[in-house]
Amino acid sequence: MSHTAAELEQAVREIAEEMRERPDRGAVADYIPELATVDPRRFGIAVIDTQGRVATGGDADAPFSIQSISKVFTLTLALGMVGDRLWRRVGREPSGSPFNSIVQLERERGIPRNPFINAGAIAVTDVILSGHQPREALGEILRFLQFLAQDSSIVIDEAVAASEQRTGFRNAALANYMKSFGVLDNPVVYTLGVYFHHCAIAMSCRQLATAGQFLAHAGRNPVTGHTVISAERARRINAIMLTCGHYDGSGDFAYRVGLPGKSGVGGGILAVAPGRASIAVWSPGLDAAGNSHLGRIALETLTRRMGWSIFGV
Amino acid sequence: MSHTAAELEQAVREIAEEMRERPDRGAVADYIPELATVDPRRFGIAVIDTQGRVATGGDADAPFSIQSISKVFTLTLALGMVGDRLWRRVGREPSGSPFNSIVQLERERGIPRNPFINAGAIAVTDVILSGHQPREALGEILRFLQFLAQDSSIVIDEAVAASEQRTGFRNAALANYMKSFGVLDNPVVYTLGVYFHHCAIAMSCRQLATAGQFLAHAGRNPVTGHTVISAERARRINAIMLTCGHYDGSGDFAYRVGLPGKSGVGGGILAVAPGRASIAVWSPGLDAAGNSHLGRIALETLTRRMGWSIFGV
Amino acid sequence: MSHTAAELEQAVREIAEEMRERPDRGAVADYIPELATVDPRRFGIAVIDTQGRVATGGDADAPFSIQSISKVFTLTLALGMVGDRLWRRVGREPSGSPFNSIVQLERERGIPRNPFINAGAIAVTDVILSGHQPREALGEILRFLQFLAQDSSIVIDEAVAASEQRTGFRNAALANYMKSFGVLDNPVVYTLGVYFHHCAIAMSCRQLATAGQFLAHAGRNPVTGHTVISAERARRINAIMLTCGHYDGSGDFAYRVGLPGKSGVGGGILAVAPGRASIAVWSPGLDAAGNSHLGRIALETLTRRMGWSIFGV
Amino acid sequence: MSHTAAELEQAVREIAEEMRERPDRGAVADYIPELATVDPRRFGIAVIDTQGRVATGGDADAPFSIQSISKVFTLTLALGMVGDRLWRRVGREPSGSPFNSIVQLERERGIPRNPFINAGAIAVTDVILSGHQPREALGEILRFLQFLAQDSSIVIDEAVAASEQRTGFRNAALANYMKSFGVLDNPVVYTLGVYFHHCAIAMSCRQLATAGQFLAHAGRNPVTGHTVISAERARRINAIMLTCGHYDGSGDFAYRVGLPGKSGVGGGILAVAPGRASIAVWSPGLDAAGNSHLGRIALETLTRRMGWSIFGV
Repeated sequence: MSHTAAELEQAVREIAEEMRERPDRGAVADYIPELATVDPRRFGIAVIDTQGRVATGGDADAPFSIQSISKVFTLTLALGMVGDRLWRRVGREPSGSPFNSIVQLERERGIPRNPFINAGAIAVTDVILSGHQPREALGEILRFLQFLAQDSSIVIDEAVAASEQRTGFRNAALANYMKSFGVLDNPVVYTLGVYFHHCAIAMSCRQLATAGQFLAHAGRNPVTGHTVISAERARRINAIMLTCGHYDGSGDFAYRVGLPGKSGVGGGILAVAPGRASIAVWSPGLDAAGNSHLGRIALETLTRRMGWSIFGV
Repeated sequence: MSHTAAELEQAVREIAEEMRERPDRGAVADYIPELATVDPRRFGIAVIDTQGRVATGGDADAPFSIQSISKVFTLTLALGMVGDRLWRRVGREPSGSPFNSIVQLERERGIPRNPFINAGAIAVTDVILSGHQPREALGEILRFLQFLAQDSSIVIDEAVAASEQRTGFRNAALANYMKSFGVLDNPVVYTLGVYFHHCAIAMSCRQLATAGQFLAHAGRNPVTGHTVISAERARRINAIMLTCGHYDGSGDFAYRVGLPGKSGVGGGILAVAPGRASIAVWSPGLDAAGNSHLGRIALETLTRRMGWSIFGV
Repeated sequence: MSHTAAELEQAVREIAEEMRERPDRGAVADYIPELATVDPRRFGIAVIDTQGRVATGGDADAPFSIQSISKVFTLTLALGMVGDRLWRRVGREPSGSPFNSIVQLERERGIPRNPFINAGAIAVTDVILSGHQPREALGEILRFLQFLAQDSSIVIDEAVAASEQRTGFRNAALANYMKSFGVLDNPVVYTLGVYFHHCAIAMSCRQLATAGQFLAHAGRNPVTGHTVISAERARRINAIMLTCGHYDGSGDFAYRVGLPGKSGVGGGILAVAPGRASIAVWSPGLDAAGNSHLGRIALETLTRRMGWSIFGV
Repeated sequence: MSHTAAELEQAVREIAEEMRERPDRGAVADYIPELATVDPRRFGIAVIDTQGRVATGGDADAPFSIQSISKVFTLTLALGMVGDRLWRRVGREPSGSPFNSIVQLERERGIPRNPFINAGAIAVTDVILSGHQPREALGEILRFLQFLAQDSSIVIDEAVAASEQRTGFRNAALANYMKSFGVLDNPVVYTLGVYFHHCAIAMSCRQLATAGQFLAHAGRNPVTGHTVISAERARRINAIMLTCGHYDGSGDFAYRVGLPGKSGVGGGILAVAPGRASIAVWSPGLDAAGNSHLGRIALETLTRRMGWSIFGV
């Protein structure tokens, strides 16, 4: 189903207006102290279609903490570095558990279920770190995002990184636990340092949607013509986003929205309509599963309106 | 991506030829004694596209025990009967556990994770049974499949049903466990009787692919014009098939094949390429997660060749 | 530490008086409907020492549903029938879980942790049943208790048995689950029938304390001179009572009371002071772990007062 | 049952001889590299009775790494410091899990099941540490053991402490996990440092048996006359040793040996025969549950021979 630029712009504008007014906004994450200060009334959306047309609404240019959305990009980087050997360290099945559960690690001898739960993303970060200094690895991740978003102004929010480093005991438990099974190669403190920092990258909806274009278009940015990864790898990353991208709410997101997507506890969601558009939304209030409450509703509305569900018209 | 009838026919034929020869065939399910007698060399495939063109290969007309594939149709029926109230009895998240796990039921007070694990399908069966005699409920399920497949010769394999009824202690445990939490309304023995019998329905690939057409085409059979369910409900059932249709191998199936699908331990898989085709494959040997080994490989090959992945070209 | 008959009688009388008055009485079990009707103000106690002197207080002659206390006697019977081969079917470790948990069964392939959680007692019942009709097995259990208590008037409360048989879905789940792993030999419905009935035996504190004497005195009733089991086996059953006799409150019971004991959800507790006394208490109100609230307090008081803890003076 | 000095000496001597010859010796712990170098042929035993008579056999004066046996003494210290408030941080129920399991911590919000599993002992260590520097806390623990053993030559084996500090990722996971729930007050690295060091204290069987006398004699060393704790507290610590002292083999130890005891992965066991004796054995080879294989057998033989079981003659 194709659309005109005007149709997309109107849909995005109306969704942004509706979302700014809604009284139900979820609860801002409080377990990273620095994130708890964000205003729950913020809402932003940016959509970029195949022709590179950009439709935005609300706070589309306000930077926010991308948090777990960075896991999509570290997965992409790590697959580029070690290919399918990555799957020796991490699975690709939904976990059926909250994002920071440690139970499954005990049952499955330290191998995390997928690259999008915390344990899995820490294992992926460890792969990127191998052979490098933490600073170099982090620089590589940041430059990759700047390249994808075509914006060298993207930075790490050091206050958020420091806040999580001070309080991220659950992640330290996950990392030490995997280390005890030999799943991590690097010193735990290094791997965690890189992990906390790449989760603390700040981006706007516009930047995120730009960065995600290659996933919507067979691994290639259709505007710049840059090929980031193969078409097959793009499909596969999308598949993992669909089955695992929203922690223990992944099934519900697929059921309601019908697009591959990855959420972060900063309230952002990057969603991919294959062959159609790259979409980023942001609203800081979260639902019980830790996903942006209004972000999900906005995507559900947009997908239905544009007929973009991957599960049928 | 459109295709000619010749292209599809050739793809199906070549896949069937390749699959008949492969030495790696998985292991035939042995926990239902009656299923253990099936010849592992069988392979069948049937594909029906939007225009109603049918391409078949191998044993496309041999009936086999559809087992858990029946859960797609009982879910469809139950949603038609009670609508979204169904979700009070069963979730729609991947389980992260084998198909017959009872652990999650204890943690989540008897509510199964999704309608495609055994516990969930038993709960769905209980909804269909309510207000009816077991025989009536079973008749309704069978007639629904005969209608969808346009073939009134479809029957229940009583030997398989009896075999499972004699040995299905794990399912009896699941049912009694849910009953202890009040999740089932009917006597356990009735609900299990209907469940074992609808899993024992025998169908061929051709019949299954015909029956699945409404899921590929917005809830409607494009050939007969019959509307079975709304377009939105078809999308949603597809979403659940994608995230939960292959037990603890659902993530891997999405990653490799990229289509919504539902497997059964009889070796069948029903897969849906939205807007393109309804597909059924059958090969009795299973992989470690209990899904048809060659069936999955055949679907992976077909999807790549036809460009049918829902995750991008 | 020896005592005079007068000292023991006074202690028991004062404890009974104190317990009748206390306002905190726990909650009467409601998951077996028939038990929910018992008056929470009841309290009974009976103590029989080495010389056979009996001290009683309160409702010491009122019969109550012994429920899980019967598991001590079925364990004794089964060990007499098959000896240490019993331990192929059931472990002897504390479970760290509530009495009716099914999680551990999944992890440990259907082998219950110990003979005093429900699953374990069902497995023990199945051993007693083997080679017999349910009616015969049940008769044997009942006659064993009548013999131990020297009272042929002891009967099964059929209303309680029927009540549990109608509502015991959780136990049916456990039994079917074990059956699926081959841990039970007999038809599930037979084993459960015997299990529900022996749990429904009604006894008074006086009868129970009499029946428990062999455990306090090296396997032998010191009054009648009857040897029931060897001294070593008596020690071992006491050890299992200590570590597993109060479900997930066993550690706390050992910590507070310091005697081997077995509780039932009818509110009874049988406790053993090795070399000193056999003790039965009854108060229907239960604590959070399903053990008699005042029964435990009465035993704690008695043990401290008489210096009977097995863990030191 | 009283005994002569000669009877006890002969029993101990014969047990030591038998144990030195046995071919079945278990496997020396290898997960702390420094412990893996210990000779599996070592065996020592020391028994001190009420009169202070000491019977020894084998390598009774060879120091070994006491490992988890230190948990008995840190529990005693912590109870002396904060009394029953300790039980807000740690439970006293058997865990039903291996010594280093993290699953239960997730289910029970960071509160370890008992003070003798690793997580519980780390929480107890954190209590002792509070308000002190790690060096001071460690000094206090060491001096307490020197005082109890009446031997100021007892030291920490720094090589073992360093070895565990380098490799103790599982314990670091447990500590961070508890910290994430607020169960630990001090910096994780401090608490772990003290924990690893007190586990690395080296003592001989003679020193350990001396140190344990207060537990066998109502909180008081009957030879020196020093009162360490109240009689009630001694009973209670014995109760916890009985139900939780051998990890997931506690039930079996109670069943076979019938004494409160605490094992360490260094191969030592401290056992308490209330009112009779304090006993220490050492043999480095472990069984599947991580407890000294020959140590348990030696204690079983000694207890049976001397009639010391707390569960009856």
